[in-house]
Amino acid sequence: MKALRYENQKLSVKDIAKTEANGEALVRVTLSGICNTDLEITRGYAGFQGTIGHEFVGVIESLPESGAVARPLGRALIAGGSSPTVGLLTLGQRVVGEINAGCGICDLCLIGDPRHCQKRTVLGIVARDGAHAEFLKLPVVNLLAVPDEIPDERAVFIEPLSAACGILERVQVTGNTNVAVIGDGKLGLLCAQVLATTGATVTLVGRHPHKLQIAGRRGIETITSNHAKLRPRQFDVVVEASGSATGFELALDLLRPRGVLVLKSTFHGVTNLHAARIVVDEISVIGSRCGRFLPALELLKTNVVDVASLISEEHPLADGVRAIRRASEPGVLKVLLRP
Amino acid sequence: MKALRYENQKLSVKDIAKTEANGEALVRVTLSGICNTDLEITRGYAGFQGTIGHEFVGVIESLPESGAVARPLGRALIAGGSSPTVGLLTLGQRVVGEINAGCGICDLCLIGDPRHCQKRTVLGIVARDGAHAEFLKLPVVNLLAVPDEIPDERAVFIEPLSAACGILERVQVTGNTNVAVIGDGKLGLLCAQVLATTGATVTLVGRHPHKLQIAGRRGIETITSNHAKLRPRQFDVVVEASGSATGFELALDLLRPRGVLVLKSTFHGVTNLHAARIVVDEISVIGSRCGRFLPALELLKTNVVDVASLISEEHPLADGVRAIRRASEPGVLKVLLRP
Repeated sequence: MKALRYENQKLSVKDIAKTEANGEALVRVTLSGICNTDLEITRGYAGFQGTIGHEFVGVIESLPESGAVARPLGRALIAGGSSPTVGLLTLGQRVVGEINAGCGICDLCLIGDPRHCQKRTVLGIVARDGAHAEFLKLPVVNLLAVPDEIPDERAVFIEPLSAACGILERVQVTGNTNVAVIGDGKLGLLCAQVLATTGATVTLVGRHPHKLQIAGRRGIETITSNHAKLRPRQFDVVVEASGSATGFELALDLLRPRGVLVLKSTFHGVTNLHAARIVVDEISVIGSRCGRFLPALELLKTNVVDVASLISEEHPLADGVRAIRRASEPGVLKVLLRP
Repeated sequence: MKALRYENQKLSVKDIAKTEANGEALVRVTLSGICNTDLEITRGYAGFQGTIGHEFVGVIESLPESGAVARPLGRALIAGGSSPTVGLLTLGQRVVGEINAGCGICDLCLIGDPRHCQKRTVLGIVARDGAHAEFLKLPVVNLLAVPDEIPDERAVFIEPLSAACGILERVQVTGNTNVAVIGDGKLGLLCAQVLATTGATVTLVGRHPHKLQIAGRRGIETITSNHAKLRPRQFDVVVEASGSATGFELALDLLRPRGVLVLKSTFHGVTNLHAARIVVDEISVIGSRCGRFLPALELLKTNVVDVASLISEEHPLADGVRAIRRASEPGVLKVLLRP
């Protein structure tokens, strides 16, 4: 099968042996999305070697036992509570999958949240081949059926959309909260839209008119960083989704005393921390990584969040190297790969 | 009057005109304490010029109106709620004083918490002459009477002790919390003791046996940073009170996923921030500056926290420059100045 591999500091599409299920579910990938974390991995982040990619939608090719498999209780907890979509998985079913695969026996896994299991593997990021391939495997417990009303082109956004929803697991945002999101890339656009669903006043800070328009069409105020600087200390919550050191500095400028800075971007390298500013203004810096899938699935179902406008282009998996290069160019949003 | 001044990048004890009350209370300082922030100011932190010092105990020399002054409601809120010690202030009364003097009319000041008033002055730190002097002035609302059972040598610790108590305003710590405090300096020793009063399991990380003993005598476990490194990801809360970049790195090593790092030290300069670690492990970094005085006053009354052992030496105010030098030497804890 074809797979987009990062090995020995080199990225290439290779023909490798078809993934074996080995007690997990085998999924035939129908569409995958390129995330900035993929780009970071090709720059050395996380020291990963293997098939990259963790955003996907696919079809169940095989299950560890023949026939239908009931999703265990833990699954429902991971996904964010009981829901009509939590049911049976069958061969040929369209699915998405949570990317953290836990050990299954530690305290965190037993309460259904393997996102911080110390022995976890992570699809295309930590010790587990990823989604830019014809097939991938994941524990059955990680899979979630996709309702018919969500086409592949929207379903493929569930992982980054749930990451945006994850902010609400970490920080209280209400209709009275004044929020700024820094960065008009894919993640920033998703974060701004998700936060706006709470009724909060959301301002997206970016510099690309065609990207800002996507949020603007959903009623979100959009400004440039130069305009943002005219509103120092006016925001209760600032989400840093630009992944740049200047974004971090701007976030501190915008926050009111005792405000909350949400760090959303994983980028390779270090930035300067003005510890005194955080202490003097009593800022809270909150790291936020993966979110639960079910809230994101609900948003995709109701089409409250515009993800379609985030798609810049689609490439065949065979052109994966070029697609990665395109995804790292300024102005380009989501690049999809079709196996 | 004598005052220890930092002006034009030079520290000296000067004879200057006696402080004028100008509508505030005039306090004759009987004892002041040297804080690491004083040392930072003499290295350029906060750009302060004038009389340094913000830890003091003194006697009311004059009040803005003759006779007794009722402490306004706002005062009680600042201090942490109603209390028998909130009452009348009279001439000759022994007092301590909160260091943030607000504008009195902004939303924060009106709810009795000027600690983040944007127009605040701060005793010996921001636009207000400080406590290493024969006299100082502060708004009446900032003063708190000292009960007879607390001698000057303990009362002078109320500001740093309330700063340690301030952690509990920002982070939930209970009997089930596993806490590490990094840094066996003055602030670390106070933080460790305050946190231990909650019933939490507290471990103090330091490298000076004679300092660690002070916490050890109060039943707090003490270890070196090398020993701490053998307990990665085992702490729910880590308080960084060493003011060093290595302390910050160690704190991240010790925290469990979704743990809380409390930044307590204001130091001049920047440190490296591995943003990805904070995001991947979903760490919360919480800045903590000033605390309310009343909880600290209660701790001093009941003698639950050993502050006496933190006194390294006392100097006359006239020897202030030498005292500051001594306070910056390794192994030295609290240095007091007596006008």
